[in-house]
Amino acid sequence: MEPPLQAFSLTRRLAAELLGTALLLAIVIGSGVMGERLSGGNVAIALLGNTLATGAGLVVLITILGPLSGAHFNPAVTLVFAVRREIDGRTAGAYALAQFLGAIMGVWLAHAMFAEPILQLSSKLRDGPAQILAEAVATFGLVVAILGSIRFRPDATPIIVGLYITAAYWFTASTSFANPAVTIARALSDTFAGIAPGSVPGFIGGQVAGAIAATLLSRWLFTQERP
Amino acid sequence: MEPPLQAFSLTRRLAAELLGTALLLAIVIGSGVMGERLSGGNVAIALLGNTLATGAGLVVLITILGPLSGAHFNPAVTLVFAVRREIDGRTAGAYALAQFLGAIMGVWLAHAMFAEPILQLSSKLRDGPAQILAEAVATFGLVVAILGSIRFRPDATPIIVGLYITAAYWFTASTSFANPAVTIARALSDTFAGIAPGSVPGFIGGQVAGAIAATLLSRWLFTQERP
Amino acid sequence: MEPPLQAFSLTRRLAAELLGTALLLAIVIGSGVMGERLSGGNVAIALLGNTLATGAGLVVLITILGPLSGAHFNPAVTLVFAVRREIDGRTAGAYALAQFLGAIMGVWLAHAMFAEPILQLSSKLRDGPAQILAEAVATFGLVVAILGSIRFRPDATPIIVGLYITAAYWFTASTSFANPAVTIARALSDTFAGIAPGSVPGFIGGQVAGAIAATLLSRWLFTQERP
Amino acid sequence: MEPPLQAFSLTRRLAAELLGTALLLAIVIGSGVMGERLSGGNVAIALLGNTLATGAGLVVLITILGPLSGAHFNPAVTLVFAVRREIDGRTAGAYALAQFLGAIMGVWLAHAMFAEPILQLSSKLRDGPAQILAEAVATFGLVVAILGSIRFRPDATPIIVGLYITAAYWFTASTSFANPAVTIARALSDTFAGIAPGSVPGFIGGQVAGAIAATLLSRWLFTQERP
Repeated sequence: MEPPLQAFSLTRRLAAELLGTALLLAIVIGSGVMGERLSGGNVAIALLGNTLATGAGLVVLITILGPLSGAHFNPAVTLVFAVRREIDGRTAGAYALAQFLGAIMGVWLAHAMFAEPILQLSSKLRDGPAQILAEAVATFGLVVAILGSIRFRPDATPIIVGLYITAAYWFTASTSFANPAVTIARALSDTFAGIAPGSVPGFIGGQVAGAIAATLLSRWLFTQERP
Repeated sequence: MEPPLQAFSLTRRLAAELLGTALLLAIVIGSGVMGERLSGGNVAIALLGNTLATGAGLVVLITILGPLSGAHFNPAVTLVFAVRREIDGRTAGAYALAQFLGAIMGVWLAHAMFAEPILQLSSKLRDGPAQILAEAVATFGLVVAILGSIRFRPDATPIIVGLYITAAYWFTASTSFANPAVTIARALSDTFAGIAPGSVPGFIGGQVAGAIAATLLSRWLFTQERP
Repeated sequence: MEPPLQAFSLTRRLAAELLGTALLLAIVIGSGVMGERLSGGNVAIALLGNTLATGAGLVVLITILGPLSGAHFNPAVTLVFAVRREIDGRTAGAYALAQFLGAIMGVWLAHAMFAEPILQLSSKLRDGPAQILAEAVATFGLVVAILGSIRFRPDATPIIVGLYITAAYWFTASTSFANPAVTIARALSDTFAGIAPGSVPGFIGGQVAGAIAATLLSRWLFTQERP
Repeated sequence: MEPPLQAFSLTRRLAAELLGTALLLAIVIGSGVMGERLSGGNVAIALLGNTLATGAGLVVLITILGPLSGAHFNPAVTLVFAVRREIDGRTAGAYALAQFLGAIMGVWLAHAMFAEPILQLSSKLRDGPAQILAEAVATFGLVVAILGSIRFRPDATPIIVGLYITAAYWFTASTSFANPAVTIARALSDTFAGIAPGSVPGFIGGQVAGAIAATLLSRWLFTQERP
């Protein structure tokens, strides 16, 4: 049912990446602020709302924008498809740029909706090897989920990604950023979902390592035998 | 599998809009009261129940009434289809009337079930430009989700709308009314989900602006290239 | 994909009704006890767990037992199909008996799992016209959801029923029993989900009224015009 | 759409069992720690997060690994398929070994992500006949859900298992371990989801009894009449 990617112009595909990543960040930041303001200090309740909103929103965004651009919304995911030679390097670079711009615009949109100062810097430290390991695991799982779903049940990819992030918000110690554009944008918000700029490089390092490990494992794991 | 809309008489289609909007409001108001009464003052917990009920209820109502009337339940959505010339102006007006009537009946039904006074006026102020922006974003997202889903995965529209509202209750600062009939009806309830009458015009203005922006963007974004 | 009902013997069909209703009640009562014990007195949190478990459990039970017996688990639903002459009166009576027996067994199983006294009587009053109205609305909505889903999206019936009950636990003031077998069985449990025996007749009266109203409306609403 | 199991080498199938069970345990233990740390002592809120993560994660893991190995992740499930002669004894033994190893690795991975000591022993007693009965019911329900889903809606098996566990975390007094590999591995974690080693044999006994009862019942219940 889905038209091939080539059917949409590169401009539309980049617009889809920018719009999707912007709305994703508006969801992540906005629902974090909502949870923080309403939960009376019970962080687990705030995280429940943050999780529901992000998981549900991802299913929507990937369903409606996937047929245009593939709905990466994530430079680590674009990197995986570039390594697999399913997207050329020039397009991949343009995708990443659209993702970073969209992510930052989404953070600012959330701030505007919640009457927060637009320009912020997070002071929430998320440091140490355990956090970096958590990001590696989070991104490893995300990439295996995407590649496995594309391999066996492509129609289910939007819901598989939404459910994966639902789980990963809770089972990884870092609450699963799993996305370099998301990580940098969240450094620009001193709210529930923020991350101090100094913690960003470790997170992105973990994410890239996890994405590469998942790409290598998936290449072997999902290959059928020749008859 | 779904029969074309013409297969059902206009009377049945209007009945579907009225019934669906009434049940939607009964769900929104009723689950808000339930949450408020049981949550011991923790608003985030009340909002979790309100969100679950509304998201789940929307999937049900759109699944069973969509094949009759399209399951708009929302004058802003009917306006979008009128702008796209997919519904004629006279029918659109009748739809909107059925939606407003149904919405008010749904509020009163919720009040009756919870032994509240039937006639109320909300005193909950929801003012300021940030709230209006939030309603514009909420309705923009709703319309893009509907048009994108109809374009690429029409069978999934009920669940896409349910998931979108699940996310939007949390990521928009206004908790996403995104519907002029819902907004006016909620002004008639001085409970969790209410809105003071004075805040209604700003909300509806934001909703109409968001719906029009989404219609224009979608016309461009979802168009495939000619070969 | 689903075999016609006649492919399974009446014994198996009755076993499916008994097993399904028993597990449904074990879920309703058991998750209520779990919520009550763990939530530290916040009833909304207990109801969230109760809702998640019941909605999820219903999807499972209807998916795996629907192809055998239709997965009514509810004398009001069996009554609707008898009125529509889709099940004969004798079989309907046997279904109802299996449902009542199963429901009671399910309550006792939940008590045994939670080390509660097996035999209990509820002391939780659920009285008054607002509660009876809520049960009428709850059952009306359930029957419309079932008949609409069977009419337009039969494969989705399990998930539609699960989502409907998820919403109805929150939007009806009675938390939506919507089932005479469930109502009587819940009178046998003095826990979170119980109902005092004296409140049972009003609930069942509301349920039957709601079921009949939904049957009549659906007969008209879901009928296509002749060309 | 799914390739037959034979299309993947035994090595890949065992890798799928090991990886899936490891990630399952990382999810169970990790989301338990997250819930415990953030919920301010309200155990029901911690269990909500634990439930969401486990249910969502199971759908993902079964969807992407089911086409390789069948996605048992559970020696009790492997035993059921061995009794039904759908897997030979030698392969079943290898599966169980991969599951136990994976489970333990998953627990240790969760500890590392949360900066907990890697090697732990649980001190959480889960004793008594009611707990053992709960595990028998939990595993009985799991196996009936799996066999019924494979029988009538094989494509839906991942979501049916995820929804079943979502319900079972709440309606069984033991929070539904329902898996001997999970049980032993959880003895190695002195966190929210742990179980004291002394309570393990009772749990596994209940699980095996429940699995066998479900296998026998399903053999009779799901059989169509001959015409």
